[in-house]
Amino acid sequence: MHLSLADIARLVGGELIGDGNVEISGCSGILEAKKGDLTFLANPKYSPQAETTQASAIIIPRQMTLPGKFFIRVDNTSLAFTQVLNRFIERLPNHHPKGIHPTAIIAPDVKIGKGVAVGAYTVIESGSSIGEYSVIYGHCYIGHGARVGSNSLIYPQVVVREGVLIGQRAIVHSGTVIGCDGYGYVTVEGRHVKIPQLGTVVIEDDVEIGANVTIDRARFDKTVIGEGTKIDNLVHIAHNVTVGKHCLIVAQVGISGSSRIGNYVILAGQVGVVGHLSIGDGAVVAAQSGVSKSIKAGEQVFGSPAQPIKEAFRTNAHVQRLSHYAATIKDLKKRIEELEKKGQ
Amino acid sequence: MHLSLADIARLVGGELIGDGNVEISGCSGILEAKKGDLTFLANPKYSPQAETTQASAIIIPRQMTLPGKFFIRVDNTSLAFTQVLNRFIERLPNHHPKGIHPTAIIAPDVKIGKGVAVGAYTVIESGSSIGEYSVIYGHCYIGHGARVGSNSLIYPQVVVREGVLIGQRAIVHSGTVIGCDGYGYVTVEGRHVKIPQLGTVVIEDDVEIGANVTIDRARFDKTVIGEGTKIDNLVHIAHNVTVGKHCLIVAQVGISGSSRIGNYVILAGQVGVVGHLSIGDGAVVAAQSGVSKSIKAGEQVFGSPAQPIKEAFRTNAHVQRLSHYAATIKDLKKRIEELEKKGQ
Amino acid sequence: MHLSLADIARLVGGELIGDGNVEISGCSGILEAKKGDLTFLANPKYSPQAETTQASAIIIPRQMTLPGKFFIRVDNTSLAFTQVLNRFIERLPNHHPKGIHPTAIIAPDVKIGKGVAVGAYTVIESGSSIGEYSVIYGHCYIGHGARVGSNSLIYPQVVVREGVLIGQRAIVHSGTVIGCDGYGYVTVEGRHVKIPQLGTVVIEDDVEIGANVTIDRARFDKTVIGEGTKIDNLVHIAHNVTVGKHCLIVAQVGISGSSRIGNYVILAGQVGVVGHLSIGDGAVVAAQSGVSKSIKAGEQVFGSPAQPIKEAFRTNAHVQRLSHYAATIKDLKKRIEELEKKGQ
Repeated sequence: MHLSLADIARLVGGELIGDGNVEISGCSGILEAKKGDLTFLANPKYSPQAETTQASAIIIPRQMTLPGKFFIRVDNTSLAFTQVLNRFIERLPNHHPKGIHPTAIIAPDVKIGKGVAVGAYTVIESGSSIGEYSVIYGHCYIGHGARVGSNSLIYPQVVVREGVLIGQRAIVHSGTVIGCDGYGYVTVEGRHVKIPQLGTVVIEDDVEIGANVTIDRARFDKTVIGEGTKIDNLVHIAHNVTVGKHCLIVAQVGISGSSRIGNYVILAGQVGVVGHLSIGDGAVVAAQSGVSKSIKAGEQVFGSPAQPIKEAFRTNAHVQRLSHYAATIKDLKKRIEELEKKGQ
Repeated sequence: MHLSLADIARLVGGELIGDGNVEISGCSGILEAKKGDLTFLANPKYSPQAETTQASAIIIPRQMTLPGKFFIRVDNTSLAFTQVLNRFIERLPNHHPKGIHPTAIIAPDVKIGKGVAVGAYTVIESGSSIGEYSVIYGHCYIGHGARVGSNSLIYPQVVVREGVLIGQRAIVHSGTVIGCDGYGYVTVEGRHVKIPQLGTVVIEDDVEIGANVTIDRARFDKTVIGEGTKIDNLVHIAHNVTVGKHCLIVAQVGISGSSRIGNYVILAGQVGVVGHLSIGDGAVVAAQSGVSKSIKAGEQVFGSPAQPIKEAFRTNAHVQRLSHYAATIKDLKKRIEELEKKGQ
Repeated sequence: MHLSLADIARLVGGELIGDGNVEISGCSGILEAKKGDLTFLANPKYSPQAETTQASAIIIPRQMTLPGKFFIRVDNTSLAFTQVLNRFIERLPNHHPKGIHPTAIIAPDVKIGKGVAVGAYTVIESGSSIGEYSVIYGHCYIGHGARVGSNSLIYPQVVVREGVLIGQRAIVHSGTVIGCDGYGYVTVEGRHVKIPQLGTVVIEDDVEIGANVTIDRARFDKTVIGEGTKIDNLVHIAHNVTVGKHCLIVAQVGISGSSRIGNYVILAGQVGVVGHLSIGDGAVVAAQSGVSKSIKAGEQVFGSPAQPIKEAFRTNAHVQRLSHYAATIKDLKKRIEELEKKGQ
């Protein structure tokens, strides 16, 4: 689908400078944008990026200008950009199920909100509820007493185990399992005896969870994924973990039991976090790092074991120079031997 | 659910010293235990841990005492603790399916034991058998000639491929695939031609397998998971691997083809093991390590490539000191140059 | 199943030197082959391997001989070996579904080719097509407008999202999700706003995909898996990635968005590839490596961050010698101090 620049200007109540017939096919960040994209300037201090972006048009503040570019001036660039994004999403041809499929097995006491859709062969157990306008695709399993908030979207073949709570506007992709048992045993005379996992999982509002993710229920109490956090595919989140709000957890990350992740934390791909530690707000962990100690707010770390990113880079640079150091040591040794000979 | 200390003392035939009205809500190891938990002292040599545990009560040997704590004296602490754990599990309100759901498709010749439950839309193919009191949730696929032993529990959306054997008291979590083809090809004139994977998988008794795990069938013969081994989420076990008894295989571990893991081995999170090697009994591999050589019994290793953990820590300490070494080398070089000048 | 050497010689039109009654139970590469296997010599320059292989028999070129071994002489060894492999596969007792199961829900306009089988409870949405002789097991979801080519095999509980294209002779294992949304957000005033993922996934001919794999749809355009590429279990392939032809992508690999992988690339287990880079034809990335820069054709790399494998090994050898270097530095320092004292 496409929107013309003229349409977009009208939608956001903005002033268009440029060709209103130009067709926009998508939205993107200012650095990643390509031809056909609309982007926006969140903050005038990034205006150099506005000059070099490859986007076909930019939403900028009222007082600004961008010679040589097509742009739309508005009062609030963020608000305007979100309006356009949402219009794109509304207009997308979606193939979501409509209504309740006759093969869906829904216990008689399940509370189904207005406008809910449930796909073929989905099973929804007793005591659970699905909030209004939520869509549950086919082949899903929603366990006893689970709750899915309104306007959420659950793709085929998702398992939501008993008692799990999912907020509003959540998106859960296929193959994901929420609320499986935490990994806990007591070893009694050489046998690992299972510790009952009696808690649950709480997924707050506006969370998106990728495909084939696993989120374990807590031993008691709850595992929590905070509001607005986005989880990529094949991520593992162990029991009793708390993930804060608006985090980005990239593919194949693993977080061990009882660790506490702050708000706005970024865990890049394949990161591992050991149990019972905390990662402060806004911390960034680079890809494949292994976090073995708590990390302060705002810190950036890298490596396995992870260390502050500047130290990690410096250490790595030294490691790369080891051939040179070894040669220097050998040379110095020879020169010392000669000095020692002379001195005798 | 809760049990009072008085009830617990009665259950295990023990002598309670403390308030019988105190409510216990769970069981845990002596180090991890929190308020509300019962724990136990496996061995009198750990009695300092019994003095500092946060558990609300401790099961201890008959001859011991623990001033200032609530405790229950018994002849066999391990046995008594297991009795309490099992009582908790029995009393848990479970929501397992009961009976055979009318939508389950079970081939006429399948042997279904007494008390078996099969959930909605599960498919069980010809020639297979489900042992007594086992529970197969909905949306599962049990292939031709597969066998699930008695008292096992299989959560929704598990795939057990043809011919796979699962023992008694197994637990398999959602999204797990057992018996998919091993990854084997012969390259013929630039094309990878599939090698048929004709073997199977054997899961012995008392194994628990987490969510979204993959266990490949052997090329011939069998891939084996030994008795009592516990596997966490998103683990990959390749064809012809043999995992011994009572191992702990933590989340996101990958074990390549034909490797042999001994008994009581611990593979921590995100560990990778290359193919065709062996890991001895009781070995421990620290998180994110890459095992590229066989490991002897009892050895502890870390790193990628993995090395004995003490060496790995020493090596890592040296790596962290590289800035210092580099500065020292520079300083020594200067001093040698001066000595050389003087000597001329 | 077994084939006698006499049968095999007849099948490939070859000349057998050895006992025609010997039973062959499988096929394997010349290095991996064991007793009971047939193997082949692709190139006369590998004849030393033919002398030491443990295979029970070898297919070799017409002009060769192998004293002390059973062998079959043919004009084209690769062609002959493939014929035998295919005969084994044809003869395998398979338990694939036959015909369309009455519980499969197939939209009226779906194009179903001749000889297609669809298992119980599979859902195939409107506008899609399944090519002739393809087998879709039960519990699968084939989305709107998706296309599966002829002679493909899809195991239980696979999700093929709307619009995804799968070629001929593809094999997809259970739990795999193809066409889930790419991981893309724009951060607007502290909230991560979803970027619509409007593209699709194209799986070319002769691709095999393991269990619990995730392949994201492109933002626009398409994510591509090239002809003949083989993907192991639990692999993650992000949006807009292009994987070339005849690659081997081993278990738990993760490839980030928009990266381009050439032909005949090998990514060993647990490798991570960052986004927006390219890996040249025939490159090999060793296990657990983290690829953070583009790699040239034919290059072999190792480490996190990855570097050319020889450098990585040399660097690693230096790292292992750090204790020694540190001791040498200490010794040199002492000797310099003594020289300095003397010189005063």
